[in-house]
Amino acid sequence: MDLLSLAGLALAVVALVAGALLKGAGLQALLSSAAFMIVIVGTLAAICVQTPWAVMRRAVKILPWVVRPPAQDNAAVVATLVEWSSAARKQGLLGLEPKLEDPELDDFLRKGLQLLVDGSEPDALRSIMEVELSVREHADTRAAKVFEGMGVYAPTLGIIGAVLGLISTMQNLADPARLGPGIAAAFVATVYGIGLANLVFLPVANKLKTVVQAQSQLREMMIEGLIGIAQGDNPKGIELKLQSYIH
Amino acid sequence: MDLLSLAGLALAVVALVAGALLKGAGLQALLSSAAFMIVIVGTLAAICVQTPWAVMRRAVKILPWVVRPPAQDNAAVVATLVEWSSAARKQGLLGLEPKLEDPELDDFLRKGLQLLVDGSEPDALRSIMEVELSVREHADTRAAKVFEGMGVYAPTLGIIGAVLGLISTMQNLADPARLGPGIAAAFVATVYGIGLANLVFLPVANKLKTVVQAQSQLREMMIEGLIGIAQGDNPKGIELKLQSYIH
Amino acid sequence: MDLLSLAGLALAVVALVAGALLKGAGLQALLSSAAFMIVIVGTLAAICVQTPWAVMRRAVKILPWVVRPPAQDNAAVVATLVEWSSAARKQGLLGLEPKLEDPELDDFLRKGLQLLVDGSEPDALRSIMEVELSVREHADTRAAKVFEGMGVYAPTLGIIGAVLGLISTMQNLADPARLGPGIAAAFVATVYGIGLANLVFLPVANKLKTVVQAQSQLREMMIEGLIGIAQGDNPKGIELKLQSYIH
Amino acid sequence: MDLLSLAGLALAVVALVAGALLKGAGLQALLSSAAFMIVIVGTLAAICVQTPWAVMRRAVKILPWVVRPPAQDNAAVVATLVEWSSAARKQGLLGLEPKLEDPELDDFLRKGLQLLVDGSEPDALRSIMEVELSVREHADTRAAKVFEGMGVYAPTLGIIGAVLGLISTMQNLADPARLGPGIAAAFVATVYGIGLANLVFLPVANKLKTVVQAQSQLREMMIEGLIGIAQGDNPKGIELKLQSYIH
Amino acid sequence: MDLLSLAGLALAVVALVAGALLKGAGLQALLSSAAFMIVIVGTLAAICVQTPWAVMRRAVKILPWVVRPPAQDNAAVVATLVEWSSAARKQGLLGLEPKLEDPELDDFLRKGLQLLVDGSEPDALRSIMEVELSVREHADTRAAKVFEGMGVYAPTLGIIGAVLGLISTMQNLADPARLGPGIAAAFVATVYGIGLANLVFLPVANKLKTVVQAQSQLREMMIEGLIGIAQGDNPKGIELKLQSYIH
Repeated sequence: MDLLSLAGLALAVVALVAGALLKGAGLQALLSSAAFMIVIVGTLAAICVQTPWAVMRRAVKILPWVVRPPAQDNAAVVATLVEWSSAARKQGLLGLEPKLEDPELDDFLRKGLQLLVDGSEPDALRSIMEVELSVREHADTRAAKVFEGMGVYAPTLGIIGAVLGLISTMQNLADPARLGPGIAAAFVATVYGIGLANLVFLPVANKLKTVVQAQSQLREMMIEGLIGIAQGDNPKGIELKLQSYIH
Repeated sequence: MDLLSLAGLALAVVALVAGALLKGAGLQALLSSAAFMIVIVGTLAAICVQTPWAVMRRAVKILPWVVRPPAQDNAAVVATLVEWSSAARKQGLLGLEPKLEDPELDDFLRKGLQLLVDGSEPDALRSIMEVELSVREHADTRAAKVFEGMGVYAPTLGIIGAVLGLISTMQNLADPARLGPGIAAAFVATVYGIGLANLVFLPVANKLKTVVQAQSQLREMMIEGLIGIAQGDNPKGIELKLQSYIH
Repeated sequence: MDLLSLAGLALAVVALVAGALLKGAGLQALLSSAAFMIVIVGTLAAICVQTPWAVMRRAVKILPWVVRPPAQDNAAVVATLVEWSSAARKQGLLGLEPKLEDPELDDFLRKGLQLLVDGSEPDALRSIMEVELSVREHADTRAAKVFEGMGVYAPTLGIIGAVLGLISTMQNLADPARLGPGIAAAFVATVYGIGLANLVFLPVANKLKTVVQAQSQLREMMIEGLIGIAQGDNPKGIELKLQSYIH
Repeated sequence: MDLLSLAGLALAVVALVAGALLKGAGLQALLSSAAFMIVIVGTLAAICVQTPWAVMRRAVKILPWVVRPPAQDNAAVVATLVEWSSAARKQGLLGLEPKLEDPELDDFLRKGLQLLVDGSEPDALRSIMEVELSVREHADTRAAKVFEGMGVYAPTLGIIGAVLGLISTMQNLADPARLGPGIAAAFVATVYGIGLANLVFLPVANKLKTVVQAQSQLREMMIEGLIGIAQGDNPKGIELKLQSYIH
Repeated sequence: MDLLSLAGLALAVVALVAGALLKGAGLQALLSSAAFMIVIVGTLAAICVQTPWAVMRRAVKILPWVVRPPAQDNAAVVATLVEWSSAARKQGLLGLEPKLEDPELDDFLRKGLQLLVDGSEPDALRSIMEVELSVREHADTRAAKVFEGMGVYAPTLGIIGAVLGLISTMQNLADPARLGPGIAAAFVATVYGIGLANLVFLPVANKLKTVVQAQSQLREMMIEGLIGIAQGDNPKGIELKLQSYIH
């Protein structure tokens, strides 16, 4: 559970609400169905046009990673791989077969272990696992970019909302008593657009991209370890190599 | 048929119309022949200057991919390639010749199959098919960028429309009764520019780019499978390798 | 002759003029020596500071490519290379010497042919021709970027023009009769800057970059063909390989 | 101690304060709890959402590098490596073991020296140390990008602050006596956002990125030197090679 | 001496001064100590925070390259290298030793010649000289980016200046006689920021980057020539290869 991101989201609400009250804008002035329609529904519309169905589904699925990233205990993975390499030297690669039944085994590592047990050559193992890594990383990065896209569209749609509001307000240009609230209402869409983009969409997209990169780095380490086992390298050497990935 | 993109386009219209009505801007205020001329005709002009004829034709041709992307049944392609590899091991590469007559065979795969049947060396096969892949990907990406270009030009032309409107309106600066509607009309061009760019052009361009990338990834898988067949690898090994591309 | 780009430039003028008239801004309001001075002379100044003399000369030289790109008959080049490879297999590489006298022979191809006739090794041929390709592509891309630079500077200088106009106008703030035309005149520089950038400079730069890339792709095909001839590959195989470049 | 960056930060304060006084804005007008809340707390909120805990900790840890970058005496490192290579040729790699006890030895160099003393092959040494380098560089670059992210979010949050202020002020549109100070207060958030981003966050992020790159370049030199020692190259040759890294 | 850049700087002054006069803004209105303080001192402050001392010194040192780029007579370098290769084939590499004493010999070429004379292997020569090239190119590019950084900070600081001016002016909102000049003065900072960035900083940075790239390209040619000499290639072949770098 990544409390920092949760705290950040809470702090964002505090900053906006306290800021609005301190500015004297009031919270009620910020409720606007028109702004909701244009900025939020519009951003959803733009992102639906842009995103294939499979990517959208993946985006929804990895969204919780913002506050609960997939477990990443690099040191434990190193320990597991070193233990496997000892076992393989004692009992042969087939001796690793029972490990496949561990229900908590990481998905990616399981696929590599299966290849090991099936007796794949180190080169074949590397090329298959690297495709696996890059296809998964590519898919997850595209999913993270769904939120980046929303962060790009929301502020510009906020401007459309403001302009539509100004167009409507300009009919009362001669009457300051009605002009003021009109302009104020027009600007609300801008707050929605910039606020959502900079306090939610873009930070979420960047967090997800960092999580995806960290996962790929861990998987690169797994591949190195699996190759070492397939080559029958000694466990000490494998440990030394894998530890370069931990910092 | 990708319903999500169609739904997105419909939702975009809803967001804009409902937003305009809720803001009280009215739909009639949004109809402007001047804004049409400057933003839409202007964007077409800019994109025509920028785009060679062949790229423009390709852009028009792949536009429908937004709602109807080329069929991408990765699992079926894996099955086909595995079946071919079995057939080739039993009957030799020439045994694959009848498959060339399948009218539903993918264009790219057919070229590779032709090379296989003609007895190309694996290395030659790879280098020819990789050029084929990159030339096609390059052409389709450039076609997708036509819409990206329109998404870049439309908002700035919207600003020109607004400024021209303001220039005309400034002659009535002393008369608020005429000033208001003038400013309102000036802003309409901005709505056209930003709206078209962010609800149509940019999402369409990004969708097309994603479709083109997915196609290239599928084609990389096809190349791997064809190489495996040319090398006489066993079908089980080929299947294992190709499945890394499916996620 | 690429009519699309010419039509685009004409359409751009139509869009601007019709838009200005429909907005009621009038064409005369758009004539401004101050805006000309700041935006057009200023853009020239910035681009002169930025660009070495040789690059500037090349930029002027390739500008006509926008409407008249260098001939690019890929199929004819394939046919020529295949014919040469047949001739070389029959008469030896020296048999190609008379082709050097063809006055219509492409510059780049002539250099490669000269190397062939001189008996260069395939590896030397490739490394020399790849340097040739990349040096030329680099020079032409830098030349195309001259117009991109103008497209970046023009709008910001348009803002300077507008601000200078507003500074001058602000002295009449209390007199709407003079304030309005002042503000209108101030904005003209913005129209110059954004219009030139988005309807001329940027589309021209992008068109040139596309032409340069297409030329490089054709030259890559030429290199492949020349290498094939130098290696004595059979003409059928060369044709197969080169056709991957045509789409 | 890098006095230039310290002087820069002092100069930034001088420029802002003197500028505000010369403009006649007064310093008191710039104190605003609302602007603080929205811009500073909001930027913190956004960056907390975006940044995993480990990256945040690293960012705080390397922040002092802005004024006190890690020691980088390239010439001294060359001298050390050349001295080691002489010692290794005289006494064997094990003769380097006592150097490991030098408490001032750079962390990265120590790891490489340990590998040398343990008798790693040059290829293994290179691959382990290059992973070490890239993992560290990647982590430090991500830490530096925390400040870049703050530099991106601060100005847009400044705009939210200004818009909230304008919304509140528009209720007094008819009363210039209250309207003026209201607009003035609204703009303060913009000053906070743009000022912090351009005088603190972005320069700090760029300085850190430069420091990280310089460190990586030094480490590349260390790897070259260690490989040379592992291969038993002569000290003169190693010195010649390493000196290319110093400029 | 590159007159084009000098002429560009002169033209920039003409464009601004003539534009200001034609707009009727007057030159005196453009003199502002507050704008100077915020934009120019502020930009210096930001760049000092961002830039390590060594990079700053290099930036100052290469600034004159804008109007007086380092001599780049590619054809003369080819001639020199071809002459050296002839001499080396007649008298051996040691026969090149006297050339080291030529006081006008380019720095980079001298280092390569020294390595040749010392009898370095071609591979060692290439790897040392490529590190030399990339370290120098990297350092000079970072120095050029100092001016790019100034071009990024100046306009945003110009906005701060304008906002501070508006904050101060808003206290006179009810008095158009004082409001107008106040707004005018506020905008001056924008002119400073955008003008300096787009007429000086960015063009200078781009010019320097082009010069640095041209220098690297020349040095790549030098390396090819030196390798050819080290391998004892025949002078005719070296000339052919080097001429691909000249266009």
